[in-house]
Amino acid sequence: RERLAAFLDSSAVRNVLLGVILFNAALLGLETSAQVMATWGPLVLLLDAACLAVFVAEIGLKLYALGGRFFRSAWNVFDLMVVSLSFAPVGEGSSVLRALRVLRVLRVISMAPALRRVVEGLVRALPGMGSVALLLGIVFYVGAVMATKLFGTAHPDQFGHLGASALTLFQLMTFDGWMGEILGPAMETHPYAWAFFVPFMVVTGFGVLNLLVGLVVNAMQE
Amino acid sequence: RERLAAFLDSSAVRNVLLGVILFNAALLGLETSAQVMATWGPLVLLLDAACLAVFVAEIGLKLYALGGRFFRSAWNVFDLMVVSLSFAPVGEGSSVLRALRVLRVLRVISMAPALRRVVEGLVRALPGMGSVALLLGIVFYVGAVMATKLFGTAHPDQFGHLGASALTLFQLMTFDGWMGEILGPAMETHPYAWAFFVPFMVVTGFGVLNLLVGLVVNAMQE
Amino acid sequence: RERLAAFLDSSAVRNVLLGVILFNAALLGLETSAQVMATWGPLVLLLDAACLAVFVAEIGLKLYALGGRFFRSAWNVFDLMVVSLSFAPVGEGSSVLRALRVLRVLRVISMAPALRRVVEGLVRALPGMGSVALLLGIVFYVGAVMATKLFGTAHPDQFGHLGASALTLFQLMTFDGWMGEILGPAMETHPYAWAFFVPFMVVTGFGVLNLLVGLVVNAMQE
Amino acid sequence: RERLAAFLDSSAVRNVLLGVILFNAALLGLETSAQVMATWGPLVLLLDAACLAVFVAEIGLKLYALGGRFFRSAWNVFDLMVVSLSFAPVGEGSSVLRALRVLRVLRVISMAPALRRVVEGLVRALPGMGSVALLLGIVFYVGAVMATKLFGTAHPDQFGHLGASALTLFQLMTFDGWMGEILGPAMETHPYAWAFFVPFMVVTGFGVLNLLVGLVVNAMQE
Ligand code: NA
Ligand code: NA
Repeated sequence: RERLAAFLDSSAVRNVLLGVILFNAALLGLETSAQVMATWGPLVLLLDAACLAVFVAEIGLKLYALGGRFFRSAWNVFDLMVVSLSFAPVGEGSSVLRALRVLRVLRVISMAPALRRVVEGLVRALPGMGSVALLLGIVFYVGAVMATKLFGTAHPDQFGHLGASALTLFQLMTFDGWMGEILGPAMETHPYAWAFFVPFMVVTGFGVLNLLVGLVVNAMQE
Repeated sequence: RERLAAFLDSSAVRNVLLGVILFNAALLGLETSAQVMATWGPLVLLLDAACLAVFVAEIGLKLYALGGRFFRSAWNVFDLMVVSLSFAPVGEGSSVLRALRVLRVLRVISMAPALRRVVEGLVRALPGMGSVALLLGIVFYVGAVMATKLFGTAHPDQFGHLGASALTLFQLMTFDGWMGEILGPAMETHPYAWAFFVPFMVVTGFGVLNLLVGLVVNAMQE
Repeated sequence: RERLAAFLDSSAVRNVLLGVILFNAALLGLETSAQVMATWGPLVLLLDAACLAVFVAEIGLKLYALGGRFFRSAWNVFDLMVVSLSFAPVGEGSSVLRALRVLRVLRVISMAPALRRVVEGLVRALPGMGSVALLLGIVFYVGAVMATKLFGTAHPDQFGHLGASALTLFQLMTFDGWMGEILGPAMETHPYAWAFFVPFMVVTGFGVLNLLVGLVVNAMQE
Repeated sequence: RERLAAFLDSSAVRNVLLGVILFNAALLGLETSAQVMATWGPLVLLLDAACLAVFVAEIGLKLYALGGRFFRSAWNVFDLMVVSLSFAPVGEGSSVLRALRVLRVLRVISMAPALRRVVEGLVRALPGMGSVALLLGIVFYVGAVMATKLFGTAHPDQFGHLGASALTLFQLMTFDGWMGEILGPAMETHPYAWAFFVPFMVVTGFGVLNLLVGLVVNAMQE
């Protein structure tokens, strides 16, 4: 078992697998072209299944070789999950599940050490952002409840329920069309709507800036 | 009194209160759903009143226990204010006052030390931004007076009075639809309008960048 | 003369002047309201003229007291310029010149040491940005010439001449409505227009990011 | 040959060449004006050809003087390339090739040491951004395949093929009109489209922020 584990971790096997992933990525890209699929459809699907078989074999062997230790690496769990997605039952209307299969391509990240390090760095940066993100979440929740109460009746598409309000407030936070699509129409029914939206933009904008500043400061300390 | 103050500050009491705040937040969210309120309305409102009673009792006991020292903590004053909002007289058309009650949920910040620290950090960063913010304010005031004089007659919706101009200049500063909604229409009546708006965008954009730089530098020094 | 110069620079005189500037700022704001001017017009204009007289007297006395040394301070020159703007000949259609008078309010910056320092800091940061700004200027010029040649005939409003192209490219750089208003229409006549606009956005966006990075690094070194 | 190389590198020759480039830049600008070309067309084209002749002569002499060493400097190769563009065969419909000639003006960068240094600094910063950029590229590819599969049939203009999807996702990443032009229409056919687009915006936005943070940290270390 130890020798199998070492073999699976050897650079030769990793490079072959990287090749299979990239080849599979190209196949999944081809699958989006109706023209290509009309002619080469069966072949593309066959090769896609072959790639999947390689992934299943690799993960199966790794599970056998490592046993419980397999789950100690978050990357192994990630690989297992994105490959498992391809076995979700596909009935009618399950275009979403079929689209999720493409996530398999993300395995390229777990295969390339340079990309792994970047993702690990990004993930390590998350806890440092936790408090500010939680604060933004509270401001969003309070803002969504208030916006639904204030503007829900007059503008049901944008503020009709908590989810719609949260999405509209997210649009506000990205400054996208906030005057033409949000504040402008709101001020036609509520002339003082700016007194709610402008402070919300300033406060969340300031919060996002502080997330960014925290990222810079953390990165400097390393 | 000292024992009462210590009791109110104990982690058991704090955790119970945190639970009540979160439960109240969920209730206030449910209140936005007409469907839920049609069936469970009386119960939701009753539970909401119970939560409010808990808050009033807690603040009342704290006031009794601490006396004048109560007001030495800005967080106590904050708690007192957001809870008091729920007792503002609610007549007809006071949907704004009813919406303000939701601010009660922000008490979760004063209960969680991690969030308190973040807010205290943000507030401490404000004075360092004071001069640049004041400068931006002056540029905005001068810009609003000039824009009202130049474009007020031709575009009364956007520049008809100082307030409208200030809001339009804020839209300009966020780069939202500035060509399609502001400069484009303005150049139809004033072909050289770009000579006012583009410098304004560059100057205020540069000012905002410097606010950001100041934040980074201050955060590094700590 | 020395005593006059010292008197003009005393904090008492500076505070009086600051008060006059702020009062004048309020007057200039009132002048934008047709309603106020209909009733109080003559009084507002009289008080405005009085403020202007104070400014002229102050600058005149300073010029007499300091002689040639007056022009050694860039702030004195600034004060002289914004006050002189009020004496530009106002004929018909000179609403621009009348609007420029409002710049007088910017004197509040030269009066408040804290604001002076911020502006001096911003101005000192400019040379360090010079090379990147010049580079952006070259990229803009080359981009404007190319865009005029490529899209000028098909989209004369946006790319008909160098100035129009430069303004449209500035819109592109701010990411404002670039798909709906610029690239979308351009791709209807030139399907490969994205090969020009997307790289332009990436290059200028990267340039602006580097301006920002340079600002942060310079500010840290001080 | 050595003396010729030294002569070509002397500040006198460089300044003359800088003058020719700037003069040529002005000519290329004039060429965009139909009015100017109607009157002065032949003269402008003649002067343009003369400038080009100077560039060809300079590069030819440099090639002769330096031999193979010419290609050791990336700036020499850059100069050779942008000048060569002017000799691409111009048939009908080759307005693109004619527009590319304007890139000649970019030689001003290789002539001015200060601009050279900035560009060299920007180019040196690229490798440090490589991993994050590659990661963004993978996320874009996976996102484009998924978006094409999910929304391609219902919204062929925006998601009909991989290229269209990539461009629409780039629009999403710049937050430009994402609600009005992308998510809004998508939610009319797929009510849960936000579950794809909002996470995509957050992830790529976070990636771009980290590119920026990396730039700041790298610049600080120098
Ligand atoms: Na925008
Ligand atoms: Na927009």
